[in-house]
Amino acid sequence: VTTRRLRDVGEHRWIAGLVRRLHDDMAASGRVLVGPGDDAAVLRASRRPLVLTVDTLVEGVHFRAGWASPRTIGRQAFRVNASDLAAMGATPVAALLALEAPGDTPVATVDGLAAGVAADARALGAALVGGNVTAGRALAVTVTLVGDAGPRLARRAGARPGDRLFVTGSFGARAAAVRSLLAGRRVRWPLAPVRVEAGRRLAAIASAMIDVSDGLLQDLGHVCRASGVAAVVDAARVPVAAGCRRVYGAAAVAHALTGGEDYELLVAVPPRRLRALAALRARLGCPLTEIGRMVAGRPAVHVPGAAWARGAGGFDHFR
Amino acid sequence: VTTRRLRDVGEHRWIAGLVRRLHDDMAASGRVLVGPGDDAAVLRASRRPLVLTVDTLVEGVHFRAGWASPRTIGRQAFRVNASDLAAMGATPVAALLALEAPGDTPVATVDGLAAGVAADARALGAALVGGNVTAGRALAVTVTLVGDAGPRLARRAGARPGDRLFVTGSFGARAAAVRSLLAGRRVRWPLAPVRVEAGRRLAAIASAMIDVSDGLLQDLGHVCRASGVAAVVDAARVPVAAGCRRVYGAAAVAHALTGGEDYELLVAVPPRRLRALAALRARLGCPLTEIGRMVAGRPAVHVPGAAWARGAGGFDHFR
Repeated sequence: VTTRRLRDVGEHRWIAGLVRRLHDDMAASGRVLVGPGDDAAVLRASRRPLVLTVDTLVEGVHFRAGWASPRTIGRQAFRVNASDLAAMGATPVAALLALEAPGDTPVATVDGLAAGVAADARALGAALVGGNVTAGRALAVTVTLVGDAGPRLARRAGARPGDRLFVTGSFGARAAAVRSLLAGRRVRWPLAPVRVEAGRRLAAIASAMIDVSDGLLQDLGHVCRASGVAAVVDAARVPVAAGCRRVYGAAAVAHALTGGEDYELLVAVPPRRLRALAALRARLGCPLTEIGRMVAGRPAVHVPGAAWARGAGGFDHFR
Repeated sequence: VTTRRLRDVGEHRWIAGLVRRLHDDMAASGRVLVGPGDDAAVLRASRRPLVLTVDTLVEGVHFRAGWASPRTIGRQAFRVNASDLAAMGATPVAALLALEAPGDTPVATVDGLAAGVAADARALGAALVGGNVTAGRALAVTVTLVGDAGPRLARRAGARPGDRLFVTGSFGARAAAVRSLLAGRRVRWPLAPVRVEAGRRLAAIASAMIDVSDGLLQDLGHVCRASGVAAVVDAARVPVAAGCRRVYGAAAVAHALTGGEDYELLVAVPPRRLRALAALRARLGCPLTEIGRMVAGRPAVHVPGAAWARGAGGFDHFR
């Protein structure tokens, strides 16, 4: 059996095949006027403001060959963007996929990447409406996501002293998995959770919200700077993923707070909205845990009793 | 003098600086509710359908180091996308920039790339509203463009036998320049033309339209297949760029028809709309030349008298 590669099939024939496979998604979407296969995609106008984000997963940087199936990597590329929309309280409508791939990339790999993006888009009622493929030295998957704003927009700015801090889900699973994978152990590369419904509901009562991609402390720092306030985190209350405890033992909490790629939501809620929060908890589709509060002071994140947290950063691509 | 590099500054500080520089653009745009620096950008809703496209320029594939300034490459990354919108009759509103760059990339390079995207966006009344930067092995610039549909949407499908074929501008300048650059001659790397105004006006009377990115004959082939008709091109009428004639001599026409990266518009116009075309010619902002016509028959592009054109392809990233 010979492997069919991109250079055997060619850019245009590969795209034509993909466009045919996406045909049903376009028909199912009430928003797509022109799907993939033309010069650009066209969406029906919406009355809601439009929310836009883009993110790239690069082989050798965000993942390594063999860590996950192409389909899983495609799903992840969709989800890291969906996480950004969720943090604003928005819902995905349409995705664009820009692929870079070496000419000897198996067709099954790019098929899998595109199928993964399309599948997770479809699961949220969105559609993969267009894209581009180009030659490149390494595999890179860039997804742009266009969404509708929800009834209320959450921002990084807006948190006030006295607001309570909550997080969805749990932290540290990816940091632990990547450590295991780098050590040669075969563990599951964890997919980002989908917090779109939670984000839409939390945006209605949040004073500020962000998704945790670079580490809980670092992203909370972004909220502090944007809001002009400080934060106090009770490290003992942060929900640490079981896998993180297993891999890191006593250091699990530190890794959960700084590892990054959790794609959970971090939300500040004013005291007067705590009753509303209690009412919507059951409909978030995920756990919500109180981990601290916002306090007056110059922007900074305090973690009492955790010396390691002083000056702890998070992920930065170039440092 | 030491060169400041991305890894000296870090992802987050670089982004923070860029966000500050883009501040005025956000204020100037009536459409941007949330600009760069939050989890996602937010645009005010529009009554017009939304047109979306994405394209990537990769170092070593689309350009080589030293061929053009970072600013020029950023402008080109914007323009190749604006060309896709122009081909649908749409106008750019907002751009997202996803950068991949090695850690030793000078900060001046990524600054220049972003400034180029922002400058050409601004020139069309659009704004760079967000993006992402990640580590990567080679420099890659992905721009997503969101635009408003014009009064009438042009598609690749819709051309009918008897329609006349027109092109904007001239062809072959980039093919010639790249040949010169590869030969080590220092020539200007030609920027794609901006045909947004022409596209908007031509969409009002076109039966089909496409932008020529992979070569005139190949992209005309896309129109033929989408429309289910054939085309006849009079090669002698195709406007060949002066630079292409200089470099290729007798072979200039062949290279002009197949070289690609011209980013001119190719438009089919029904006979009944030729009078309307005459009326708007002066307002296109560029030359418009008739080069052939659509004819009945199975999808194919015929170039009478040009044996080289039989089966001539165009650019494909993997073939």
